[in-house]
Amino acid sequence: MINPRVASGTRDLLPEQAIAREWLLGALRDTFVRHGSVPIDTPILERREVLYAKGGDEVHRQVYEVYQRGTDPASGKLALRFDLTVPLARYMAAHVSEVGVPFKRYHIGPVFRGERAQRGRYREFYQCDFDILGTRSALADAEIAEIIHDGLAAVGIPDFRIRLNDRRVLDGVLDLTGLSTVRTAVLRALDKLDKQGRESVVNEIRSVVEGLGGGDGAGPTPAERAEKVLSTVEGLRGTDAADSLRRMRELLSSCQGSVEGVDRLERVVQLLSQAGVPPQRLVIDPTLARGLDYYTGIVYEAVVVGYEGYGTVAAGGRYDDLAGLFTSVEIPGVGASFGIDRLLAVMSEAGWLKPTRSTAPVLIVNFPDGDEGLYFRVARRLRARGIGCEIYPDQKPLRAQLGYASSRGYRFAVIMGPDEIAAGQFALRDLTTRQQEKELPLERIEDIIAERIRA
Amino acid sequence: MINPRVASGTRDLLPEQAIAREWLLGALRDTFVRHGSVPIDTPILERREVLYAKGGDEVHRQVYEVYQRGTDPASGKLALRFDLTVPLARYMAAHVSEVGVPFKRYHIGPVFRGERAQRGRYREFYQCDFDILGTRSALADAEIAEIIHDGLAAVGIPDFRIRLNDRRVLDGVLDLTGLSTVRTAVLRALDKLDKQGRESVVNEIRSVVEGLGGGDGAGPTPAERAEKVLSTVEGLRGTDAADSLRRMRELLSSCQGSVEGVDRLERVVQLLSQAGVPPQRLVIDPTLARGLDYYTGIVYEAVVVGYEGYGTVAAGGRYDDLAGLFTSVEIPGVGASFGIDRLLAVMSEAGWLKPTRSTAPVLIVNFPDGDEGLYFRVARRLRARGIGCEIYPDQKPLRAQLGYASSRGYRFAVIMGPDEIAAGQFALRDLTTRQQEKELPLERIEDIIAERIRA
Repeated sequence: MINPRVASGTRDLLPEQAIAREWLLGALRDTFVRHGSVPIDTPILERREVLYAKGGDEVHRQVYEVYQRGTDPASGKLALRFDLTVPLARYMAAHVSEVGVPFKRYHIGPVFRGERAQRGRYREFYQCDFDILGTRSALADAEIAEIIHDGLAAVGIPDFRIRLNDRRVLDGVLDLTGLSTVRTAVLRALDKLDKQGRESVVNEIRSVVEGLGGGDGAGPTPAERAEKVLSTVEGLRGTDAADSLRRMRELLSSCQGSVEGVDRLERVVQLLSQAGVPPQRLVIDPTLARGLDYYTGIVYEAVVVGYEGYGTVAAGGRYDDLAGLFTSVEIPGVGASFGIDRLLAVMSEAGWLKPTRSTAPVLIVNFPDGDEGLYFRVARRLRARGIGCEIYPDQKPLRAQLGYASSRGYRFAVIMGPDEIAAGQFALRDLTTRQQEKELPLERIEDIIAERIRA
Repeated sequence: MINPRVASGTRDLLPEQAIAREWLLGALRDTFVRHGSVPIDTPILERREVLYAKGGDEVHRQVYEVYQRGTDPASGKLALRFDLTVPLARYMAAHVSEVGVPFKRYHIGPVFRGERAQRGRYREFYQCDFDILGTRSALADAEIAEIIHDGLAAVGIPDFRIRLNDRRVLDGVLDLTGLSTVRTAVLRALDKLDKQGRESVVNEIRSVVEGLGGGDGAGPTPAERAEKVLSTVEGLRGTDAADSLRRMRELLSSCQGSVEGVDRLERVVQLLSQAGVPPQRLVIDPTLARGLDYYTGIVYEAVVVGYEGYGTVAAGGRYDDLAGLFTSVEIPGVGASFGIDRLLAVMSEAGWLKPTRSTAPVLIVNFPDGDEGLYFRVARRLRARGIGCEIYPDQKPLRAQLGYASSRGYRFAVIMGPDEIAAGQFALRDLTTRQQEKELPLERIEDIIAERIRA
């Protein structure tokens, strides 16, 4: 007999987990649709050439390559996508003339990475991306933050923070501290500030600076330069958004790109406030870098208040040229993604997910010497009213059927045994209160269920 | 520059295709939920040992094997699932005590097969399975047919036929014609009757009979025996369900298993009629075999009337022991699956899918010297009423924005230019009728949109 376990780093979803995920994805889809965003899909199997288009990415070592059984793996051309961004770039290069711009799309689906298996981290996991392509407008920057806000509110996160920064602010600081040539490495280090702490980040930047060489004993040491860049960024933190923006403007007034970044941040915060997003939800955070090197403007990330240790539940930013590897058409855009598994983990831990093992509220009890045709008719009428119900398939003892109904989380059991059928009057059992109402005509039972469900 | 094409046998979905698929899956999910069915999920990556558990299956040659980049493919242990049935068997073996029985589940997701690429056939495609596990009840058999009916009705198929048969009827015929030892091969041949025609099926059965050897010139020739089995099955076809059942009973009265099969078919048809499924939707078809060799009782398939050439859009059957390769717990069940891609192809060909390129009905025009804060506020109020809307991100000429709105399929454009803002009165353009109503207060615009959308 073969062991029925899943592969390491993958998992089965039990019904209550699958119900929770479908519900969460449904609420997010609804948010996207209200913003006029449309779905797309791309294959899970992509050509290796496409996935490896961008050279030297760390994630390439984690790619799963694919070949058809019985063929030579080395001559295989396929692999599993590791994110939804490379597929989006390919998609836009292939279809930009069909879909047109501006183009607001969302995309939800599994991606695959051969990461070290550990608790809460999977090799097959969902991504949920949304972007506005083909525009450099501040409106689009604000709307991505608004969608993050609306999505987290829609799934019922009681309090969260959306941190905002602009890469051009950090670029200004790197200019001032003479580290522009190692921009990507310093930003990657800075991105770990929350997770690994200040000392670790200073050390990482110091190594980067040491790698630059040229230290001749004059000037500041690498350690001093690392300390300098971090304290400069930290010095931009204000008591509120207006104060942060003021400090940025003061420090970076000589750097035109940075001033544009500050202007953009200010406009985004203003638009969001006019839209009615509560100001306390937004934090200008000058230390926010986001690791991905293609961001060129605004960057976002969101954390759940009280559950910051779980990491970001949404993140993203603006990029100048999405699809440059596949087309000469320049496609700027801005976007973000929700961390579905992380959101579910936080919500489950916090008790914000009402555990549901059933999708339907009604069990129709199946009696020996009952009338299965009647059960089918009643079930059909309830379903026509949008009320989910199950007829117990076997004629087990009443107690067993009621036990099943409770364990499944059903709210009502409809009792139509031989006695009830003879009398033409039926009974309804509320499985939550354990109260049973008797001698009801069928129509009344249907109405009671409909009323209580709506209440 | 790298060619942005997809891998052979895979495809991108444009927004209107993705919108149609999301809508279709939503309607089917809703049907499942009304029947008290719960979702589960299993990984796309399975252990090869699990996928190859059942020996000698043709589909094994089409499996995609997977290894992490930089590791030895031969020592890899992973592959992509080729259906949702093997994963269900593994899932039930692993989780039957957690989920309990009876267990009604649905499962929607991509599967992978390295088939020869051809038009309308994909190597990565969706399956949508639903089953009732842990019961041998006739109710469950009837309900699976009812779900096929309700699902096809829910997605708007105007006319379709659900063909029913019972494997035990065919077993009886094979007994009578002395071909029980080559049961699977004969059933596989019979399954091709619709697609390949009578002559081809007789030839295939003849080859099977020839393979039996033993023809010594006495008795009937293999060709005669092949002809005999097919004409016997065809002779069971009646003018209606009652007539078919009568003929089956007559011919197979000596075979107890077959009689049980006929009884079961009769009960299922009766229950479905009591439930209110229109009788003309159901056809007892004694030639129906279904290729899969694990079916042991009722089998189903559904075709769309007028589009039979597209093949079955739903199919399934009853099995005695789902998970025998993974557990000694015997799990009988009955289930079927919808052919998502085929359904979409038929509906698209028939014009039953209203093509929609937009998920939202409203575009808010973005004027130079307008008020973007106002646009955000209005958008937010519309979204709070469940009305999707997009603010055009850039201040392009009015004509360009209206052209965009029409091409996207938006129904309304809200006009709030500098003149309207000064007057405090705004305009609403109906993009379908091209009529524009002017001098409206904002609340009135929101109400008009809400009313017309609901209408």
